[in-house]
Amino acid sequence: MAGNTFGKVFRVTTWGESHGAALGAVIDGCPPGMELDAADIQKDLDKRRPGKGGGESPRKETDQVEILSGTFEGLTTGTPISLIIYNRDAQSRAYDHLQNVFRPGHGDLTYHKKYGIRDHRGGGRASGRETVARVAAGAVARKVLAENDISVIAYTIAMGEISAARRNMKDITRNRLFCPDLEAAADMEALIDTTRKKGDSLGGIVEISATGCPVGLGEPVFDKLDAALAQALMSIGAVKGVEIGAGFKAATLLGSENNDALTLKGYRTNNAGGILAGISNGDTILARVAVKPIPSISQEQDTLNLDYEPVKIKVGGRHDISAIPRIVPVCEAMVCLTLADHLLRQKSIEN
Amino acid sequence: MAGNTFGKVFRVTTWGESHGAALGAVIDGCPPGMELDAADIQKDLDKRRPGKGGGESPRKETDQVEILSGTFEGLTTGTPISLIIYNRDAQSRAYDHLQNVFRPGHGDLTYHKKYGIRDHRGGGRASGRETVARVAAGAVARKVLAENDISVIAYTIAMGEISAARRNMKDITRNRLFCPDLEAAADMEALIDTTRKKGDSLGGIVEISATGCPVGLGEPVFDKLDAALAQALMSIGAVKGVEIGAGFKAATLLGSENNDALTLKGYRTNNAGGILAGISNGDTILARVAVKPIPSISQEQDTLNLDYEPVKIKVGGRHDISAIPRIVPVCEAMVCLTLADHLLRQKSIEN
Amino acid sequence: MAGNTFGKVFRVTTWGESHGAALGAVIDGCPPGMELDAADIQKDLDKRRPGKGGGESPRKETDQVEILSGTFEGLTTGTPISLIIYNRDAQSRAYDHLQNVFRPGHGDLTYHKKYGIRDHRGGGRASGRETVARVAAGAVARKVLAENDISVIAYTIAMGEISAARRNMKDITRNRLFCPDLEAAADMEALIDTTRKKGDSLGGIVEISATGCPVGLGEPVFDKLDAALAQALMSIGAVKGVEIGAGFKAATLLGSENNDALTLKGYRTNNAGGILAGISNGDTILARVAVKPIPSISQEQDTLNLDYEPVKIKVGGRHDISAIPRIVPVCEAMVCLTLADHLLRQKSIEN
Amino acid sequence: MAGNTFGKVFRVTTWGESHGAALGAVIDGCPPGMELDAADIQKDLDKRRPGKGGGESPRKETDQVEILSGTFEGLTTGTPISLIIYNRDAQSRAYDHLQNVFRPGHGDLTYHKKYGIRDHRGGGRASGRETVARVAAGAVARKVLAENDISVIAYTIAMGEISAARRNMKDITRNRLFCPDLEAAADMEALIDTTRKKGDSLGGIVEISATGCPVGLGEPVFDKLDAALAQALMSIGAVKGVEIGAGFKAATLLGSENNDALTLKGYRTNNAGGILAGISNGDTILARVAVKPIPSISQEQDTLNLDYEPVKIKVGGRHDISAIPRIVPVCEAMVCLTLADHLLRQKSIEN
Repeated sequence: MAGNTFGKVFRVTTWGESHGAALGAVIDGCPPGMELDAADIQKDLDKRRPGKGGGESPRKETDQVEILSGTFEGLTTGTPISLIIYNRDAQSRAYDHLQNVFRPGHGDLTYHKKYGIRDHRGGGRASGRETVARVAAGAVARKVLAENDISVIAYTIAMGEISAARRNMKDITRNRLFCPDLEAAADMEALIDTTRKKGDSLGGIVEISATGCPVGLGEPVFDKLDAALAQALMSIGAVKGVEIGAGFKAATLLGSENNDALTLKGYRTNNAGGILAGISNGDTILARVAVKPIPSISQEQDTLNLDYEPVKIKVGGRHDISAIPRIVPVCEAMVCLTLADHLLRQKSIEN
Repeated sequence: MAGNTFGKVFRVTTWGESHGAALGAVIDGCPPGMELDAADIQKDLDKRRPGKGGGESPRKETDQVEILSGTFEGLTTGTPISLIIYNRDAQSRAYDHLQNVFRPGHGDLTYHKKYGIRDHRGGGRASGRETVARVAAGAVARKVLAENDISVIAYTIAMGEISAARRNMKDITRNRLFCPDLEAAADMEALIDTTRKKGDSLGGIVEISATGCPVGLGEPVFDKLDAALAQALMSIGAVKGVEIGAGFKAATLLGSENNDALTLKGYRTNNAGGILAGISNGDTILARVAVKPIPSISQEQDTLNLDYEPVKIKVGGRHDISAIPRIVPVCEAMVCLTLADHLLRQKSIEN
Repeated sequence: MAGNTFGKVFRVTTWGESHGAALGAVIDGCPPGMELDAADIQKDLDKRRPGKGGGESPRKETDQVEILSGTFEGLTTGTPISLIIYNRDAQSRAYDHLQNVFRPGHGDLTYHKKYGIRDHRGGGRASGRETVARVAAGAVARKVLAENDISVIAYTIAMGEISAARRNMKDITRNRLFCPDLEAAADMEALIDTTRKKGDSLGGIVEISATGCPVGLGEPVFDKLDAALAQALMSIGAVKGVEIGAGFKAATLLGSENNDALTLKGYRTNNAGGILAGISNGDTILARVAVKPIPSISQEQDTLNLDYEPVKIKVGGRHDISAIPRIVPVCEAMVCLTLADHLLRQKSIEN
Repeated sequence: MAGNTFGKVFRVTTWGESHGAALGAVIDGCPPGMELDAADIQKDLDKRRPGKGGGESPRKETDQVEILSGTFEGLTTGTPISLIIYNRDAQSRAYDHLQNVFRPGHGDLTYHKKYGIRDHRGGGRASGRETVARVAAGAVARKVLAENDISVIAYTIAMGEISAARRNMKDITRNRLFCPDLEAAADMEALIDTTRKKGDSLGGIVEISATGCPVGLGEPVFDKLDAALAQALMSIGAVKGVEIGAGFKAATLLGSENNDALTLKGYRTNNAGGILAGISNGDTILARVAVKPIPSISQEQDTLNLDYEPVKIKVGGRHDISAIPRIVPVCEAMVCLTLADHLLRQKSIEN
């Protein structure tokens, strides 16, 4: 049983390969009567587009989204919303030399063994390009949230060993890396340059913050809000860890330090990250994800080929140095999708 | 839409409150023809039982499981397996003084606001006692895995500031805390004593390791194996973070450091934690969870009552100092449930 | 992937075999704050109980339901509701002589081949006894509907060749067969007697009517209300056909005859059976099911044994002559479950 | 929670409106390594296309399907298969005069009230045109079945009062109505002509037969094969009844007549329609559906407008006289989808 659908009530099915004809998403369960046009979605897609500068691949992804169904005269109708983004500039030839070898850190071997067949062109479905459909669908979820005064923002708080020392939220859009600390952002850019010259790659940490979330979202005991967020975020290609609120640091705190005292002005602290017993508590929802360095590096690596013989490999192609910053809007999208789904799920028990 | 079912093919629905008549699980989708009796399940439940010594509540949970359906002459029949554990020794009176106040760090407020009604006795469904049903179901999943030569073990690698320095797997059962480092275990016990005297509580880190897992489990792009594990583990009450393989450390590594070279003898390292592109790669699956300190402490805390007036609270009752070690078999159970589900999901694409 | 769960939002999982320890249902997604006690459910179970007179098995099924979770002080809490009915008077020995033979018209062969193992005692999970759990869960659904002024009633309109000529709804409870035509009921009783003497069995037709249903229930294009009802009703053991409104008769009508004109006083006719384009239209929802004769007859029949050798068989045991009237409350239950589920599903799109 | 997904393991999500940009389907869970190209699908779509003669709308639906994802070098890859059919020749203006009135027998009122908004152009999502996506997806399911030697065929056995007296399966493709009785087909054509002249419309009965189905498909107790077929078929726009095997006739048979004796040569009769206890028994699966007359007729009808005022309406436009024969391939498609799903579901319990 395959797994390309996310959500239970606001339900998204994505499809498409890196070098196929197109990618897309079908959203089933979007409330009717909501204003929606392609420009709403395009805005989020553009955030994911490679910039001129730094860490990203020079491949030009001028992703244009079209809405093929589910709206009428600018409003959603309650029927499935089909979104499509045609692939352009997909140079599948560039990957021909990699089709007989398992790239370390990639899904080449696992896809090959799981399915017995693999679309090797640019990683096929295992490519980061798959996230285009997530971002498109996430933009629709974001509109649902906006109608309920919930907003979601993600930003870079670490790259390699460099961490953001501050959260100047207004600075997030003032640098290419979506970092809320301009000084750190500059250091990160320098690190990107050094790393590229070494033919290596970088990981980092992204934080996602959701404000305006009402008390009550999350469905114990298995579809708790934090569990749903963990699935959502861990399903993104390069993510190796997810934490909520104090996260791993909570393991070292005492109960008296970790508990968020409840006062007339709200919670005194937010170690819970806005979620108690798997249900949103009205405070800001805070999650962080660990992003591994991109496995495609130009340094020589040991691996095996399809005949399970040892070979050396240098992965060329048009690769980013880090999944950051392009993963930032993807994190936002996944949190939007999760919250929109739980917002609608909660409705079924309200009167 | 509620969330008390876990898994898609090996599907478990749990039910029951801390101080209700019973707790239980219904497993739909367990393969037929498998040997199963209550003793198989009891073994895992006993692991979760409070010991004589240290950190746990003095409440005697002599949990006895019964199999009410789904087996015939000692074999599973392919029909739903209903497991029940009757509650004994549940002193609900002990909680009466807490029914009008929101305990910090607990789900009191969130349940109250989400459902508009709350079974306050011992936390109701939000109690850690809910995990009895998970462990019972997990024991059945463990049998499915055993038939496929997959084994899962969890152990404590940190409590408060104390970390295990080694992984002597045979020592795990030689101490009450399931710690693979006996020296660290002794230090942890000492820390538990000190902390209890302060009326405070502790968190920690649990690691889960699954060996024997074939290549190919996991369903991209949303039900990847790591995403499914993240949901499974984050759905456990006290868990605030989940990481796979190198986890958050991967964020600071270079690609050349993080990539696991593929050799004739297998992977040279296991930063991937046994999962590539969301699919098991044949190596040991490694996950870690951050466990927050238990919120019930006997120190005085600030909070609000049901009328949203500020009050002071001291949470008495029969509470553990730490969710560790009792959370350890729960982590095992959730990983067993996840792997069994994905093992069966994979079958639908095989010939 | 097994199929013992019904519904998406009001979600019921049933379990239990004819001669196992107990049968039960877990309801996940029942709205919180609703009054519910065992007596509410017992009432519906009693309707299903064999009477003194006619067509049913002499087995005494004094089914007593217990609520094990999901309520607190007489109100539902939004957590899973676990219902259990312990089996009594289950004489499994009576079936020993049938364990090596495939009874015609029963699921013996299909269960044997599907699962490779079969609980032969009284048909195991394939027994009509399984429906006890449906009726129990249906009683909870009925309460949800009652809070929304929707009521569901089923009744017998044909048995063998005898059809009810009128729909005197108040007569339904005045005869053991739930027939709205007392004269026909008397004829049916006579037919039951004759048929029993011949060692044969009878089928019939049950009609289900739901009033008070608001416009808007049903989820196109696959979970239309009529499609959901068809699944629900066809999933009952002896049912071989389902029709809505004019049903099969609609095939012979002209469009001008079949269309229900819309007037200020409502629909002029109800050939649609209260459902248009898969969505309830505000009129009475009308469904009918064809019930096959019970396959257990005492006449000699040809069949095969487990070694696929031809044998003669006479099925003794304590069998009913017809699935009617005991199937009547089961039909009601399935319609209640379907409507409750769709009522809650509809909430997720409303504001 | 919306309902545009069908199946659990072979899972299809359809989208698209009658007069939108396109219609399509995403198939998640198709086994990898299967040959598939657009021509395979086109063949089934062409069967659904209006002919030159008789009962269908003169609208030219030259539906061309494209495969946008999920295949590589002519083989399925196990990733989602996205199918798209662009709309051509959609004259939405033709429907402008109907936008303020509820057409009798159509979903105008129910969609309007359910969603609060309605794409009135050609019925929007409630149009029979929606079935294009079903047929496209069904063609992929048919390939999965063909690899397992299962074949599905549907045919017309009644139109209005005219019934087919024989089942000459080879004649099915020799007449435009897919009728296995050429004489009856000629009478039906004459009836269509007469009916058109009266400005009226016709219903009928379609039978679907599936051969080669192994014993064991179907998932008791709610997802039994007959229950799944009933949902599948009843979800088709004009269908008002579904029966399996003897169907409604079984209600009048005695047990001794209805039971299918099991012999060394197979079942002596097939009143069960190939399904026992909800599981395929190895015999031919037989289902029949009642198709109501098309509600769009040119005779004057009473109805209400959007202000709930009584009005007269004549529905013009390019309408068929009967849903038959175009519904025939749709019935085939839905049975193919159901069987493919259950074939894969069964795999999860096999070894």
